[in-house]
Amino acid sequence: MTQDELFKKLIAHCKEYGFIFPSSEIYDGLSAVYDYGQMGVELKNNIKKYWWDAMTKLNENIVGIDAAIFMHPKTWEASGHVGAFNDPLIDNRDSKKRYRADVLLEDFLAKQDEKIEKEVEKARKRFGESFDEKLFRETNPRVVEHRAKRDAVHERMVAALNDNDLEELRQIILDAEIVCPISGTRNWTEVRQFNLMFETKMGSVAEGASTIYLRPETAQGIFVNFLNVQKTGRMKIPFGIAQIGKAFRNEIVARQFIFRMREFEQMEMQFFVRPGEELKWFDHWRQTRMKWHRALGFGDEHYRFHDHDKLAHYANAATDVEFEFPFGFKEVEGIHSRTDFDLGNHAKFSGKKIQYYDTETGESYVPYVVETSIGVDRMVLQVLSAAYKEERLENGETRTVLNIPAAIAPVKAAIFPLVKKDGLPELAHQIKDMLKFDYNIQYDEKDSIGKRYRRQDAIGTPLCITVDYQSLEDKTVTVRHRDSMQQHRVAIADLAAMVGDEVSLRKLFSKIV
Amino acid sequence: MTQDELFKKLIAHCKEYGFIFPSSEIYDGLSAVYDYGQMGVELKNNIKKYWWDAMTKLNENIVGIDAAIFMHPKTWEASGHVGAFNDPLIDNRDSKKRYRADVLLEDFLAKQDEKIEKEVEKARKRFGESFDEKLFRETNPRVVEHRAKRDAVHERMVAALNDNDLEELRQIILDAEIVCPISGTRNWTEVRQFNLMFETKMGSVAEGASTIYLRPETAQGIFVNFLNVQKTGRMKIPFGIAQIGKAFRNEIVARQFIFRMREFEQMEMQFFVRPGEELKWFDHWRQTRMKWHRALGFGDEHYRFHDHDKLAHYANAATDVEFEFPFGFKEVEGIHSRTDFDLGNHAKFSGKKIQYYDTETGESYVPYVVETSIGVDRMVLQVLSAAYKEERLENGETRTVLNIPAAIAPVKAAIFPLVKKDGLPELAHQIKDMLKFDYNIQYDEKDSIGKRYRRQDAIGTPLCITVDYQSLEDKTVTVRHRDSMQQHRVAIADLAAMVGDEVSLRKLFSKIV
Repeated sequence: MTQDELFKKLIAHCKEYGFIFPSSEIYDGLSAVYDYGQMGVELKNNIKKYWWDAMTKLNENIVGIDAAIFMHPKTWEASGHVGAFNDPLIDNRDSKKRYRADVLLEDFLAKQDEKIEKEVEKARKRFGESFDEKLFRETNPRVVEHRAKRDAVHERMVAALNDNDLEELRQIILDAEIVCPISGTRNWTEVRQFNLMFETKMGSVAEGASTIYLRPETAQGIFVNFLNVQKTGRMKIPFGIAQIGKAFRNEIVARQFIFRMREFEQMEMQFFVRPGEELKWFDHWRQTRMKWHRALGFGDEHYRFHDHDKLAHYANAATDVEFEFPFGFKEVEGIHSRTDFDLGNHAKFSGKKIQYYDTETGESYVPYVVETSIGVDRMVLQVLSAAYKEERLENGETRTVLNIPAAIAPVKAAIFPLVKKDGLPELAHQIKDMLKFDYNIQYDEKDSIGKRYRRQDAIGTPLCITVDYQSLEDKTVTVRHRDSMQQHRVAIADLAAMVGDEVSLRKLFSKIV
Repeated sequence: MTQDELFKKLIAHCKEYGFIFPSSEIYDGLSAVYDYGQMGVELKNNIKKYWWDAMTKLNENIVGIDAAIFMHPKTWEASGHVGAFNDPLIDNRDSKKRYRADVLLEDFLAKQDEKIEKEVEKARKRFGESFDEKLFRETNPRVVEHRAKRDAVHERMVAALNDNDLEELRQIILDAEIVCPISGTRNWTEVRQFNLMFETKMGSVAEGASTIYLRPETAQGIFVNFLNVQKTGRMKIPFGIAQIGKAFRNEIVARQFIFRMREFEQMEMQFFVRPGEELKWFDHWRQTRMKWHRALGFGDEHYRFHDHDKLAHYANAATDVEFEFPFGFKEVEGIHSRTDFDLGNHAKFSGKKIQYYDTETGESYVPYVVETSIGVDRMVLQVLSAAYKEERLENGETRTVLNIPAAIAPVKAAIFPLVKKDGLPELAHQIKDMLKFDYNIQYDEKDSIGKRYRRQDAIGTPLCITVDYQSLEDKTVTVRHRDSMQQHRVAIADLAAMVGDEVSLRKLFSKIV
């Protein structure tokens, strides 16, 4: 099964088992917007809790907030989003289709890479064992030519994007002879900037309706509340403010399922530090966040850092935590040393003094900021991608199983009466009632035990508890574990403690602190 | 202290202790939008968990979802919001100010009521003990006249709003000689309808940007996902779908702090039942939801039902749960029997068949719906209003305390070393580390124990744990309870179980099931 096929299967699985539905599906959907179903919402909420608790409970000096999506429009002037949060768009005059210029170029680069790999594969087949891949890549004239073309385009593109040079972007597209995928022509318009913020009007016209934006990131809600939180929470630097919330970007090319959506959710933490100490803290959060990801247990080899060479204008260090999705290594989290750019600009645009008086040094200063920023939806996709397995069983059947870490699995345990009579359903319900206050529990009495296991495997339930005739006699049940499929008998009196131990977030936290 | 003063004090307290800040305050705020601070977000999250768990964990047949804020625009045609979700607005030509016509009239009614109460108070003072209030209200000519005028306006207003008769609304304002509070004139324009939905554009222009709305209620996200959840979750009627999420209404008159905001959060559950059984389930949810509110323990007398006589076009029964706020009894939750209006309309507008096949009766039908709908922000305000107390202590001092139920209090316990030396801070930190994985804990070593108690009282922390010299010897600590202010010694080894028992949601749940 190719990675592409795997990804398609995963998307189908997400719909079939109530994780993720296309939004407004009965109206044939809304582009790049998705809804979380009954399993998806539990998984998402558990991921949010894992992050929130890791930030606010494990760190004495991090508190949360929840700022509104609507903010004063000046916020986005200060942050630079009104002026510079743009995508370069280009239209094909024949197809009337609009594209992101940088995406057209990236697609071109990917095609050049594909050409190179095809040459390598062809040669590997031809030469067999004696094939020296390294030498071939370095010397084969076709490979050398493809790569040269690729590298030249790449270099010009990075420079043009960096300089925001729209004419040059267009020229690169023309020089690379890129055609519109629809019309097949090179009849391109100029490149123009398109702001990614969603606009709306607040208030009715007579009282002066004002244009406001749906926030394109949650970070600014933290910055404008810096003084309020610092003062009312009596916070001392270094300290952090954490927030989970929706953000919105009018992406031209939204794609890859829930990887890039127009409405999405962020988990951001801004850590305020003494100027000069930001790189020490940048390194601290770089390590800590990687531990948080790896604690999920999907295998350290699927994660890597991508340190940025080119930095945004406000940053003096930046790295991404990348995860190996079915479509390659992609960013799941960004860690950025943002300097005093944001607080400084809000001070300038608001005319308010935003400073911190450091009782240790006796100085007042604008704190520096280290940010950790992660997409909730992307984390959900990361967990689902990593957890989705098709396994061949000993009896020749296959099972589809989600190896979701127990602490964030949507359903913690399923309870089955072996048969629908002789008091087994009643005892099973008693057990459910004992556990249901604390855990998300399913009760299922339909079909064979084997089929019920398959259904729970498919939604990633770590524990299945079967009540049988022996249970009536000795007050024990069979507990079956999702991953090992091993079974053992447990006294009903010990069940709550066993489930609690199995699904506790503590296990993950112990790998972070 | 009047109720009005109390409310102002509460608002100030919310800001001072990090519960609620005006949004974008450094830019002088954004009208009727608020941010939750470090204490507010914890309180809000705990209230959401109390609701979510009560819905999804206590009921085997209720599951959650999380639909996007963006929905297909046809959704809002089907729901009736595009056509009928309007406020009647009127402008004063001299002040250029715009008002909601119904609010102008309601203010007039309130003024008439005030006039009546003033007459009653005057008479009470004059006649002393012999005053017969009932007789006075019925016979005093001025009172009778005020009331007659009030009742006449009220009756015409209700009829005009019901019939959507804008001309009549204007005529009532003219007849009652209502003046603009700014200009003092009666120079009114016509009354016009103003749609309350926020609009925005999705997509760039070339690919055909479409107008979409920020959802004005979360309910429709449940209705359009009815089939997806029912099928993938193998749900059998009766069953429910619960959802928590943001909604947006461009209110002309947003007011009373977080009671009515333009951006707010809803907790809605739609319960799907067999046609004909809806009133039985309406009654079930009416009782169950009241139990949920009363389980918080603020006193049953502060809650009441307000059954609706006039029903919305889609409802065949409706009631509000009202709570006694400082500004009077107001709705905190609505319970509505919505018939098959929503599912039927979505079937009509989408052209899809939305039916349920009932294996028990062998029939297919469009399910009927009973809805419970509650505002998260309003619940936060309800809890804060009920919990805020100023108490005179035995030593003559006063304390401000928030008697928030322990299960939803922002901070569960605070840990104090008696002094900042001799190993007490270290032991206090050990205790914190023991508890911090499971509970939100504060550590505080600054100022006297008395001052530290005051700070925790002000944010509603149910337990304060003090580590003193005796603790080093016998491994016990002093636990002080917020409401009774009583203290007793507890073994450190027993602390986790004690805190767990004290703050568990189970206590509340046991009053509901």
